[in-house]
Amino acid sequence: MSHSALFDRHKDTLDQAIKASRTREYWTAYPEMPSPKVYGETASKDGEAAFKSYLNKAFDVDQPGAIGTVGAEKSPYGFDLGVTYPKVDVNALVSEVEALRGDWAKASIEARTGVCLEILHRINRRSFEMAFAVMHTTGQAFMMAFQAGGPHAQDRGLEAVAYAYEDMARTPAVARWEKPQGKRDPIVMEKHFTVVPRGIGLVIGCSTFPTWNSYPGLFASLVTGNAVIVKPHPGAILPLAITVAICRDVLKEEGFNPNLVTLAADSAEAPLAKDLALRPEVKLIDFTGSTTFGDWLEDNARQAQVYTEKAGVNCVIIDSTDNFRGLVSNLAFTLSLYSGQMCTTPQNIFIPEGGIETEDGHKSFDEVAAALATGVEKLNGDDERACAILGAIQSEATLERLESYGKGDNVVLASHAVPMAGFDQATIRTPLILKATDESSYSSELFGPISYVVPTKNTADSLGIVEDSVKNNGAISFGIYSTSEEVLNQAEEVACNSGVAVSFNLTGGVYVNQTAAFSDFHATGCNPAANAALSDTAYVSNRYRVVQSRKHV
Amino acid sequence: MSHSALFDRHKDTLDQAIKASRTREYWTAYPEMPSPKVYGETASKDGEAAFKSYLNKAFDVDQPGAIGTVGAEKSPYGFDLGVTYPKVDVNALVSEVEALRGDWAKASIEARTGVCLEILHRINRRSFEMAFAVMHTTGQAFMMAFQAGGPHAQDRGLEAVAYAYEDMARTPAVARWEKPQGKRDPIVMEKHFTVVPRGIGLVIGCSTFPTWNSYPGLFASLVTGNAVIVKPHPGAILPLAITVAICRDVLKEEGFNPNLVTLAADSAEAPLAKDLALRPEVKLIDFTGSTTFGDWLEDNARQAQVYTEKAGVNCVIIDSTDNFRGLVSNLAFTLSLYSGQMCTTPQNIFIPEGGIETEDGHKSFDEVAAALATGVEKLNGDDERACAILGAIQSEATLERLESYGKGDNVVLASHAVPMAGFDQATIRTPLILKATDESSYSSELFGPISYVVPTKNTADSLGIVEDSVKNNGAISFGIYSTSEEVLNQAEEVACNSGVAVSFNLTGGVYVNQTAAFSDFHATGCNPAANAALSDTAYVSNRYRVVQSRKHV
Repeated sequence: MSHSALFDRHKDTLDQAIKASRTREYWTAYPEMPSPKVYGETASKDGEAAFKSYLNKAFDVDQPGAIGTVGAEKSPYGFDLGVTYPKVDVNALVSEVEALRGDWAKASIEARTGVCLEILHRINRRSFEMAFAVMHTTGQAFMMAFQAGGPHAQDRGLEAVAYAYEDMARTPAVARWEKPQGKRDPIVMEKHFTVVPRGIGLVIGCSTFPTWNSYPGLFASLVTGNAVIVKPHPGAILPLAITVAICRDVLKEEGFNPNLVTLAADSAEAPLAKDLALRPEVKLIDFTGSTTFGDWLEDNARQAQVYTEKAGVNCVIIDSTDNFRGLVSNLAFTLSLYSGQMCTTPQNIFIPEGGIETEDGHKSFDEVAAALATGVEKLNGDDERACAILGAIQSEATLERLESYGKGDNVVLASHAVPMAGFDQATIRTPLILKATDESSYSSELFGPISYVVPTKNTADSLGIVEDSVKNNGAISFGIYSTSEEVLNQAEEVACNSGVAVSFNLTGGVYVNQTAAFSDFHATGCNPAANAALSDTAYVSNRYRVVQSRKHV
Repeated sequence: MSHSALFDRHKDTLDQAIKASRTREYWTAYPEMPSPKVYGETASKDGEAAFKSYLNKAFDVDQPGAIGTVGAEKSPYGFDLGVTYPKVDVNALVSEVEALRGDWAKASIEARTGVCLEILHRINRRSFEMAFAVMHTTGQAFMMAFQAGGPHAQDRGLEAVAYAYEDMARTPAVARWEKPQGKRDPIVMEKHFTVVPRGIGLVIGCSTFPTWNSYPGLFASLVTGNAVIVKPHPGAILPLAITVAICRDVLKEEGFNPNLVTLAADSAEAPLAKDLALRPEVKLIDFTGSTTFGDWLEDNARQAQVYTEKAGVNCVIIDSTDNFRGLVSNLAFTLSLYSGQMCTTPQNIFIPEGGIETEDGHKSFDEVAAALATGVEKLNGDDERACAILGAIQSEATLERLESYGKGDNVVLASHAVPMAGFDQATIRTPLILKATDESSYSSELFGPISYVVPTKNTADSLGIVEDSVKNNGAISFGIYSTSEEVLNQAEEVACNSGVAVSFNLTGGVYVNQTAAFSDFHATGCNPAANAALSDTAYVSNRYRVVQSRKHV
């Protein structure tokens, strides 16, 4: 198939993606419901079989620089995956990728965009397989693994392609420049403009959202002509290995060298990220993970553009409400979803010490806190439903943190284990809610299902604390409940001053920790939690440059 | 006048600018000819009078943080300007600007764009005044000072406004998001998107193109909602002081605090750039100048986005030509224009040691070199014409460099002083052409009218040297002369590999050191000479972020 044929095939999807990113109206390219009608009657069974076919063997990816194997993923549902991946020699891999990346760099914008759209399409068709891979590395419950690991991640990848395509296509390949010269003949020149990629893009994945957080950077770098090396978190390799394999399939079919996209799996004992990040050929780095390593990358990988999403402390302010029941059920779900292992889960809930007004009259601080606790408890009261919402705890560190923080005398709601049918080793835990005693207790990120209810003097105090917290500790989400337009306006001002997105009065089926591709920007790029937004023009436009030639006609 | 009235008034200019930047066809907003028909019958006289009115007194700019005066500009045409400017206290200035910048940040995109377009319009109306100010600080001859310091600089400012406006306006202020829920009612949300500036932008000007090189950063930062502090080169303050004054006039008339744009003039003895650059409130820096200081900014001003244009070594390759006469006259003018004090002037001219083919048959290396020397000599043979092309040497350092390099035994064409009627102290010098002996002699920038003819084994050798040179030493321009399509294709490949714009066979009225706004990108942003291009999306899109709010409808 010719390169532009792929572009033509997916052009309508691209056009719609660009349009949606401009209107910010609801749109999605990839259906989020794991419906047999959409994905095929046998899709679920086939996906599970495909996932199982990977277990306890070497993942089939033939690429340069291999020097043995690596891989020790454990499902948070209680078993070893037993998958091994090629262990790479960083120098050999980077040198070989650098040497071969020219053809992709020289391909037309349309050719590259067509390839990326085809890759996304194929990933979408394998969403069930991906769901099982995401579930059994991240611990996400199946439905979430399907949605966040599949269609939602694909939408975020498509979003990056749409922004990058639009920006690249903004400059024509050829232009005729004709400058009038009064009575003399005009000066006429023909100019050619070529998109030139930066070099190699390095994508460093995280353990909780290996696809969702990696696809924007992967596709933004790839579509702009860069080669991409994918370095997954050692705990969540398989979803990105499948992704890389699909990229390689499509590249190969289209006549490109598959080594334009490679996998650099590593282990916690012998990490490769630093070695890769410091290679001079690596010009772009996309990272999701700890503030410590994100800061290290920004400070040390100076040869590269570094896009980081790091830790943050998300906040909710409760001022007043005319739907207390909705507030409680919304927050209970928010705190429970994937056991709070999301970069968008609120950690600190600020409530005036004097309590709040509701449609049922005044509620004291303790009543609000107790209602939240009861809401979380009831939501997770049925084990099967709890497992479907909570998923499993991904890491040992989160389990230990949960246990250690649960031992204090400020526990509002204790965490407990939930048994899961068929997975008796699964690490499933309900959320822990604590009452904050002083600011130092809640001002750094406690990743996982740990949240604080924080008494404040009043809502003005809450707003001041949140503004400072976002500026100093970073945040990706911020929610507020108030019946006062004035307070909501103040919250919007706090959001603008500190640089965080704000959600008002979420009491229904939209949660502060969820964003919608094409409409919601994920992160703002202007507080310590992230230096970039997924996705906007700034996220894509510096991944390539334009080189021009001109001559007289 | 309401803010959107200014926007409406200039909307047509903005629309045309955006269109031109997308088609890359010829377009300009501000007429480049100093014609009385365009600028008014008395414009030249009025401009000169306005310039003279500044001399030997304090420049009238009332702004915070003043602690005395500073200013010791000397016209390269041989007299002291005697203008003084407020000396600022950096801490007081930055603190006050930070405290007042909120209203501008909150103004609508249209209001800010309207103000910037009005500023550019007013600067344009004062192009003659600006021309004299540029001439008597930079040493540019009048015509060049008028064009490059006036309309061309204004076009580059408008270009930045156009890119920024288009990118900001890409996201709607309000969106309605409606997600279908099968048979249930859809979820409907209203979302607000707010452009949030980074903070304070610092613009650090250079001595040779104070307006042209500063306007893109100044207007890119200002239109995206940032306050701007302008720190001119101590040798070329007046053009930027006039610019700042015009910015302040328009801001004040439109009800904004004029201190949103301030002047931070300094002296060579007590420079302010480092202090300003390290202030935490300074989030954007635009710099044109030395590699040493540009690198320092990139390494140290880590709280800011740093856009730098630094030194480079521009190259020309002569392979063959069917218009030797045109080649010689084109290069002679290029080397002479403003005595080579342009970041785009070629320094190294690579010629095969065996000579080249021309329409007049074979020419040896020495014949080509001699023809170039004769071309330059003849072009500057008439003193009056020479002065109009060469202008004056801006700095003592350039004069000294010229003298010292002229003492060797490899001189192909000696430099000499040219007398100028009415300005007997003017430092006017013709270009010096040297023959390169070894690579070390020509591999770093020798700013000013010094160029090398460099013998190479053949054109393939020339191309290899240029590719390495651009990668290692940086370059903003690259020209090649060849009658072979294959060689031109190879040159285009060299240009793409190393990241520099290339001009083919310039033998007429377009010169390799000149670029046209809206059509030619100035610099690529991907070689050591500059980390950004003037202008493109990447140059503007990270100067602001978007903060959103959402609520159920």
